[in-house]
Amino acid sequence: MEIGKKVWVIADGYMNHTQKGNFESHEAVCVLNVSGKAAQIEITVYFEDQDPISGFRAVCENNRTNHIRLDKITNDIGEKIPYEKPYALLIKSDVPIVVQHSRMDVSQPEMTLMTTIAY
Amino acid sequence: MEIGKKVWVIADGYMNHTQKGNFESHEAVCVLNVSGKAAQIEITVYFEDQDPISGFRAVCENNRTNHIRLDKITNDIGEKIPYEKPYALLIKSDVPIVVQHSRMDVSQPEMTLMTTIAY
Amino acid sequence: MEIGKKVWVIADGYMNHTQKGNFESHEAVCVLNVSGKAAQIEITVYFEDQDPISGFRAVCENNRTNHIRLDKITNDIGEKIPYEKPYALLIKSDVPIVVQHSRMDVSQPEMTLMTTIAY
Amino acid sequence: MEIGKKVWVIADGYMNHTQKGNFESHEAVCVLNVSGKAAQIEITVYFEDQDPISGFRAVCENNRTNHIRLDKITNDIGEKIPYEKPYALLIKSDVPIVVQHSRMDVSQPEMTLMTTIAY
Repeated sequence: MEIGKKVWVIADGYMNHTQKGNFESHEAVCVLNVSGKAAQIEITVYFEDQDPISGFRAVCENNRTNHIRLDKITNDIGEKIPYEKPYALLIKSDVPIVVQHSRMDVSQPEMTLMTTIAY
Repeated sequence: MEIGKKVWVIADGYMNHTQKGNFESHEAVCVLNVSGKAAQIEITVYFEDQDPISGFRAVCENNRTNHIRLDKITNDIGEKIPYEKPYALLIKSDVPIVVQHSRMDVSQPEMTLMTTIAY
Repeated sequence: MEIGKKVWVIADGYMNHTQKGNFESHEAVCVLNVSGKAAQIEITVYFEDQDPISGFRAVCENNRTNHIRLDKITNDIGEKIPYEKPYALLIKSDVPIVVQHSRMDVSQPEMTLMTTIAY
Repeated sequence: MEIGKKVWVIADGYMNHTQKGNFESHEAVCVLNVSGKAAQIEITVYFEDQDPISGFRAVCENNRTNHIRLDKITNDIGEKIPYEKPYALLIKSDVPIVVQHSRMDVSQPEMTLMTTIAY
């Protein structure tokens, strides 16, 4: 099946740095790959006041989902996505995938969620 | 009317296993069918670390909505979608439908909601 | 300008019946009309277990937004959208409009919000 | 790269006027620009009961994101987007951009979030 596309954008990225019990504020880029072969995914992170950081890589095997935790990935030179700083993401895959973006925020006593299919 | 399409994807599926009073954490695949005939819907569930599970079926009659509770459906061999495990969904219908995906989470004292039109 | 389209679908409708201080659980169909003339909007409400109810009408003037409260509209014969019952919406306009759907829920002590551009 | 488009619509705008500690209710128009040149963005705000207000301007440099805070921007003649009043947004750029819209609401003790890719 050919479902999805190879380039996806998320414009509202932001992670605060809070943990509550088992819950940790984070964002995730959730991928589905039913293309027939493994997806090589590269993520570039854009900021308001500095050059983009590239080289964040992930693989989503065929017939698998990968919920990529944005607070955990590191790029080719060991950098992470910074907390408390607005960012946006450009996600490229070598095969068609579908991307949904979600945020869980526990900066206040109760958690809140938001999600959208990426563009 | 021909509204919608026959293949839909949700990439961010996750159900925690919490109940609070009358509220239970769950996700729903909400379908509208105005195609003129009943929609035979088949859902395949994809995971990060195992083969997909297929054979989840639902019907949405013509001129009806069906808010399919993902914590309740079982597939042809009695399997359910597991809790506490990231998943993604591929939803196929034999007639055009529209699909929206929502999560209600009550894992913390207060509920939170998220929703998006599927891809 | 010609922005938007004439037919929109929302598949996940549900209003619980709770009020907290100044806050009342509700959903809204938010419309923007920049078509050059007033938009005559008709909404049909679909259910899981009964025939649809039509005849809900609203106007969105040119160069105006209309945040149509779904807990408040009545149709041609005085019917309202029922509470505590899953529904879906088909929204038709005689000119192109853009539709976004949001829910505010105060069934628990704290409010939660969800939104999506309609299909 | 040519990613995105030049005209975007958000139909559900609403800011209440609440502040809690470091949190302030607000909405943001989050932009990503990878077009190759700076994006000149103009926002027009539409209301239910008055003429639109235009002349809100922002720049998003190439290879940058701009999370435009709607509670902070002022237009050419010093006007702000009013609180406690439903609005919608028409966003125009001279180069293709991607736009996502989010609301953070702290009108009740706990924060809630909502987001969607704009239309």
